[in-house]
Amino acid sequence: MEKELLLMLPGPVPMPERVRLAMMRQAINHRSAEFGAAYADCVRVLKTAFGTTNDLMVISGSGTAGMEAAIANVGKDKEIACIVNGKFGERMLKISQRYGKAHEIKSEWGTPIDLAALEARLEQGAQVVTLVHNETSVGIRNPAQEVGKLAKKHDALFIMDGITSIGGDTVEADKWGVDIAITGSQKCLAAPAGLAMVSVSGRAWERLTKNPPYYLDLAAYKKSAAGTPMETPYTPAVPLFLALREACLIIEEEGLAARIARHHRMSGAVQAAAKAWGLSLFPKLDAKHGYSTTVTAVEYPAGVKDDEMRATIKKMGIVIAGGQDHLKGKIFRIGSMGAVSAPEILATLAATQHALKRSGFKVQGDGVAAACEVLG
Amino acid sequence: MEKELLLMLPGPVPMPERVRLAMMRQAINHRSAEFGAAYADCVRVLKTAFGTTNDLMVISGSGTAGMEAAIANVGKDKEIACIVNGKFGERMLKISQRYGKAHEIKSEWGTPIDLAALEARLEQGAQVVTLVHNETSVGIRNPAQEVGKLAKKHDALFIMDGITSIGGDTVEADKWGVDIAITGSQKCLAAPAGLAMVSVSGRAWERLTKNPPYYLDLAAYKKSAAGTPMETPYTPAVPLFLALREACLIIEEEGLAARIARHHRMSGAVQAAAKAWGLSLFPKLDAKHGYSTTVTAVEYPAGVKDDEMRATIKKMGIVIAGGQDHLKGKIFRIGSMGAVSAPEILATLAATQHALKRSGFKVQGDGVAAACEVLG
Repeated sequence: MEKELLLMLPGPVPMPERVRLAMMRQAINHRSAEFGAAYADCVRVLKTAFGTTNDLMVISGSGTAGMEAAIANVGKDKEIACIVNGKFGERMLKISQRYGKAHEIKSEWGTPIDLAALEARLEQGAQVVTLVHNETSVGIRNPAQEVGKLAKKHDALFIMDGITSIGGDTVEADKWGVDIAITGSQKCLAAPAGLAMVSVSGRAWERLTKNPPYYLDLAAYKKSAAGTPMETPYTPAVPLFLALREACLIIEEEGLAARIARHHRMSGAVQAAAKAWGLSLFPKLDAKHGYSTTVTAVEYPAGVKDDEMRATIKKMGIVIAGGQDHLKGKIFRIGSMGAVSAPEILATLAATQHALKRSGFKVQGDGVAAACEVLG
Repeated sequence: MEKELLLMLPGPVPMPERVRLAMMRQAINHRSAEFGAAYADCVRVLKTAFGTTNDLMVISGSGTAGMEAAIANVGKDKEIACIVNGKFGERMLKISQRYGKAHEIKSEWGTPIDLAALEARLEQGAQVVTLVHNETSVGIRNPAQEVGKLAKKHDALFIMDGITSIGGDTVEADKWGVDIAITGSQKCLAAPAGLAMVSVSGRAWERLTKNPPYYLDLAAYKKSAAGTPMETPYTPAVPLFLALREACLIIEEEGLAARIARHHRMSGAVQAAAKAWGLSLFPKLDAKHGYSTTVTAVEYPAGVKDDEMRATIKKMGIVIAGGQDHLKGKIFRIGSMGAVSAPEILATLAATQHALKRSGFKVQGDGVAAACEVLG
């Protein structure tokens, strides 16, 4: 087997060796002090990354399972306002449609969310609001704090998908009034895919709906996590928990503030390169929105073909992402999540610059040099 | 860290080194030919272990997620006959209660299932039947073939939990008329915990209910698995899939028939030891039931305390299981699932024999010697 491809995707992301090695461990009993201690380590660090003192539980399943757990446990038969300006907002909407009366608060993908439409819907009685904090499909950071204020004003529960922000960008779930925050393991935490983390506020516990899916019943997770040792209600994916624990310890050692600053620097380097090339970032921002600091979405210049450009980059051992759904062929996306550092960013930008030229695009300036100015 | 405890539980079970090492791999893209090939390897081997040519899909989640996927996709708002003679039968009942009108077909834990009561319920219009094939809580093997015949006769769908039989005991899902069979990764397959596998018959696909949980929507898994490359609808727990692939390749190399024979031999050795000691196996059988060949449940003799005995055994580095719920203190259980071989069985029986004596029980004969007769 040749060397692994360097994944510069908006997840999954490369894992530090310590994280990978933790999975080699022989099977251990998941009803044991050893497992309980690993789970407790994860929860301690994750609470800091979520910015919460609420209950926090880990589900063996992908981020989508976490999104569904949130909606199914408080949204059943409720009026749900789903803010959509990208693919994962749409997923929240689709899940909400299975449980309650979902109302789409729609903006074009990559444009600011419509806070006025949200407020109108809240005035009409929406009881739950869903938001994707960092919309990786378009590279935009949505104003969670503003949404939290509106939800609180109208006494609605606020569910925030922080799958690609938590651990890489500033998240203050409690300060922002988030009732249920969700993240996934294979994004900014740089752990393997397969775990979802969910925090739940006291207000949300008071408003639990009946009969959520059995496997995603958050009250069962809460009860098991409160035991000694700390447990999960059903058999957990033990190797993934052990890996997540290492990933969390790494976050603690780096320091959350330093980790967030690193994510800003890495995405800043990608943004600087795009600017130097003369390309536009995809999101259209207003004063309340920001560019994602965990994935950068760039518009393709006329004439550059997505498949060809990414194939050229892949030949150099690097994988970047294209656009999803109707954005296929229109944008490319470079992830800067998790453990990513200057060498990976520089290699990716060098390969991208080469591929742009190869595709016939005349870059305005040297993007790699511009990135070095940010990173150096 | 000292050496791992030897887990002789009804799951999780020790994993072969190859399986554990597979998880060390750096993150790979789950939308790639490499991942698709690993998934395809799993499905090819699992179909032989299930005894099916039906569609077979892998869900990132524990066996319970697989049980719920089965019930939620065909049982919603239906009359469901849930056969219960142990803890996992009860779990099937609890899950069924969240989706349809569940009718318990109850027997005392560890006693034969009530086929007459099942038939009566089918005559009253039950549309779905659930059965736990190998009930680990009590060490009994239930007559799946008989249940399949009754379900077919009354045109009901048959959901079979094969979580602790598939890959370790004979399962012929298609011959037995099983519409949805389920297994989990950390049992007879000797892979890490965290994956559930579900096979679905044509008849079951035709009777899908609307709006199952989003994460457990089997039609979405079918669609993604039919693509090139083979995929899952949501991000899979990649390291667990890579480990499962190795576990499946090991099954293929050993040969399924030889693997099943080995499980029979290992459980036969435990049964022989219990008999030699003068202890009774817990299940009460009739001609249609058998002792589990993946876990052996033994009644405690009067005066032997569960906590003390298992503590003595644990001091020797071995973990066996006690009874669950109302059987706590009344039985102990020794698993013989997965990669388990003579050395682990002999060590476990030697430690158990010592612990029985230490607890004041006067064994009739040498259980370790009796086991050697079976194994040698």
